[in-house]
Amino acid sequence: MNNFEFYNPVKILFGEGQIENISKELAPYKTILLTYGGGSIKRNGVYEKVMSALKGKTIIEFGGIEPNPRYETLIKAVELARQTNVDFILAVGGGSVIDGSKFIAAAIPFNDEPWNIVSKGIKVEKAIPLGTVLTLPATGSEMNAGAVISRFETKEKFAFGSPAVFPKFSVLDPTVTYSLPQRQVVNGIVDAFAHVLEQYLTYPVNAHIQDRFAEGILKTLIEVGPKTLKNSNDYELRANFMWSCTMALNGLIATGVPTDWATHMIGHELTALFGLDHAVTLAIVYPALLKIVFEEKKEKLRQYAIRVWEFPDEEIAALKAIDRTEQFFRELGIKTRLPEHRISFEDIKPIIDRFAKRGWKLGENKSITSDVVEQILKKALEEYQ
Amino acid sequence: MNNFEFYNPVKILFGEGQIENISKELAPYKTILLTYGGGSIKRNGVYEKVMSALKGKTIIEFGGIEPNPRYETLIKAVELARQTNVDFILAVGGGSVIDGSKFIAAAIPFNDEPWNIVSKGIKVEKAIPLGTVLTLPATGSEMNAGAVISRFETKEKFAFGSPAVFPKFSVLDPTVTYSLPQRQVVNGIVDAFAHVLEQYLTYPVNAHIQDRFAEGILKTLIEVGPKTLKNSNDYELRANFMWSCTMALNGLIATGVPTDWATHMIGHELTALFGLDHAVTLAIVYPALLKIVFEEKKEKLRQYAIRVWEFPDEEIAALKAIDRTEQFFRELGIKTRLPEHRISFEDIKPIIDRFAKRGWKLGENKSITSDVVEQILKKALEEYQ
Repeated sequence: MNNFEFYNPVKILFGEGQIENISKELAPYKTILLTYGGGSIKRNGVYEKVMSALKGKTIIEFGGIEPNPRYETLIKAVELARQTNVDFILAVGGGSVIDGSKFIAAAIPFNDEPWNIVSKGIKVEKAIPLGTVLTLPATGSEMNAGAVISRFETKEKFAFGSPAVFPKFSVLDPTVTYSLPQRQVVNGIVDAFAHVLEQYLTYPVNAHIQDRFAEGILKTLIEVGPKTLKNSNDYELRANFMWSCTMALNGLIATGVPTDWATHMIGHELTALFGLDHAVTLAIVYPALLKIVFEEKKEKLRQYAIRVWEFPDEEIAALKAIDRTEQFFRELGIKTRLPEHRISFEDIKPIIDRFAKRGWKLGENKSITSDVVEQILKKALEEYQ
Repeated sequence: MNNFEFYNPVKILFGEGQIENISKELAPYKTILLTYGGGSIKRNGVYEKVMSALKGKTIIEFGGIEPNPRYETLIKAVELARQTNVDFILAVGGGSVIDGSKFIAAAIPFNDEPWNIVSKGIKVEKAIPLGTVLTLPATGSEMNAGAVISRFETKEKFAFGSPAVFPKFSVLDPTVTYSLPQRQVVNGIVDAFAHVLEQYLTYPVNAHIQDRFAEGILKTLIEVGPKTLKNSNDYELRANFMWSCTMALNGLIATGVPTDWATHMIGHELTALFGLDHAVTLAIVYPALLKIVFEEKKEKLRQYAIRVWEFPDEEIAALKAIDRTEQFFRELGIKTRLPEHRISFEDIKPIIDRFAKRGWKLGENKSITSDVVEQILKKALEEYQ
């Protein structure tokens, strides 16, 4: 096991009816910036519950944070918050609203050009405190200190992180997910599944607890994912789906182990260039990547095959696990090959060029150069059989 | 899954060499109360490493905190700390030193009789900040907000808890455990195992993640426990043992599920009256309790049998799991029956009387009255075959 530091001070309020308890958490604050996305919270009753819990506060609303939240949008919220002396940000939405709100929180007291926080990876020391009411389980942003921000102008998508943007609290009420479109639930399942794989499918370092926890989250997603798609109002299924997504990326299963994240980095480019849903890009890249860097990952792939998919312990298990993973994504309704999204080799050339220019070496072994990215994307160009 | 609140702000510094990093964490503090136990830290090099990391601070030493830390001892530290204006407590030791230090931290600013914190279960709002360097993996106290304190005079042993006594940081360096006596390592394995069972072996509430995590900790303790006893200097084994103990009682696997704790409550009395090691009392009470309240727990016992012990899925699996658990404790070298500790029915009568007088109803179903305690202790009086 590698040395590690683990710190996660986010308070979780989990369960039906927890939204009303945010009023206690917000007692020290006066002026709340209420951030949200396209307005679904006004149709499903969440907005009213939140407003009722915010009674007595000055509320500044900022809606319209888009999926893959854009710098160009967020910077308007930063200006608004600075003008109105906001002292708390309440993000009501999914990963995009929460990620965007983390950027707003960090940018408000930042004395330089805020885009530098993202593009130069500056570790901000200060941020306006924020809390969240999660409406879409997927990214884990509600219980971590990271965020991914896009810039429309330059078609860029970058991650940033700082302990200053840990939410003070996050409300996870499974009932608010009942009205989610199927596509978003599918994306959530795949996103959380891929988050676990990025921290688990590397090489073994004798981290028993971390492996068992990772396997436990994967097994839970396999058990409840397809069922919760079919039974959107089943509380128990939604509760387990929601808690799985949070546990998948709150730092716990990353303690003391190598992590990969190459699939995410390559996927971000597919989103930036072609507008594919984040989860769809992961479902496309992951099976291809696992085949290309098979040798580096084969020990953990075999463990994954045996413990998660319950395959017999044999040489071929590792390969079978890759196919089973892709099949799982497809059974959820995701198209896992680039041609199915009408993307050709010509289309992906700019991605390879970008990685070549940046000179990045991705993956737990820093072995994924632009050449390997090209092999991975070519593999994803093959027809599914 | 039940509604829950989860909050755990303890920063973990895990791995070899992490003791030196406490100097960073202690930057804001001037006068450190350094608490420890019988002085083993002066023989195994930990004391020197800690002193070197504390360079430049005023250090007030308070050694001699005993196993099952006593109010009578701790109150002396409280007086010393008040006189010397201590602004941070660094607990270097196992669960007893850490638990005792939590009491000291809470008692220093407490305006009433400090024993009331424990005996009346007062939720203190304020405490002197504390950090820990863990030397004995077992209780999980390094990453939770609870403590158990004894009063020698009255032979009482009570738990208390408050978010104010969460350690600011805890150092977990597996190498400091190399010199532990076997008996303490055995106790640690059994203690952590029992902690997980208290939160897992109740009745099912569809908490997939919590169940999988609990099972993962149990499996890890089964895998690494016996091996680390035989290979005390194997870093990987000690690291996994150490992290298992911490994860067993940091609140995570208790989220959203019923918990039991009857075995602990009954065990505390065996320690208070006969001076048995805490873990030994758990190994005596648990198998007996599981047989007596079998019907209430049989669903989870069956799941435990199948997933943790990998028994075939059959009616008898649940019963077999109880025997296998007792056998596991015995293989570690613990005597699991009262007569093996020369305790007779006459001896345990005062315990039954105590529970009868208190009128407590223990367990996840509040079904364990003093009558049931009597049945459990009688079961533990039977000879092991």
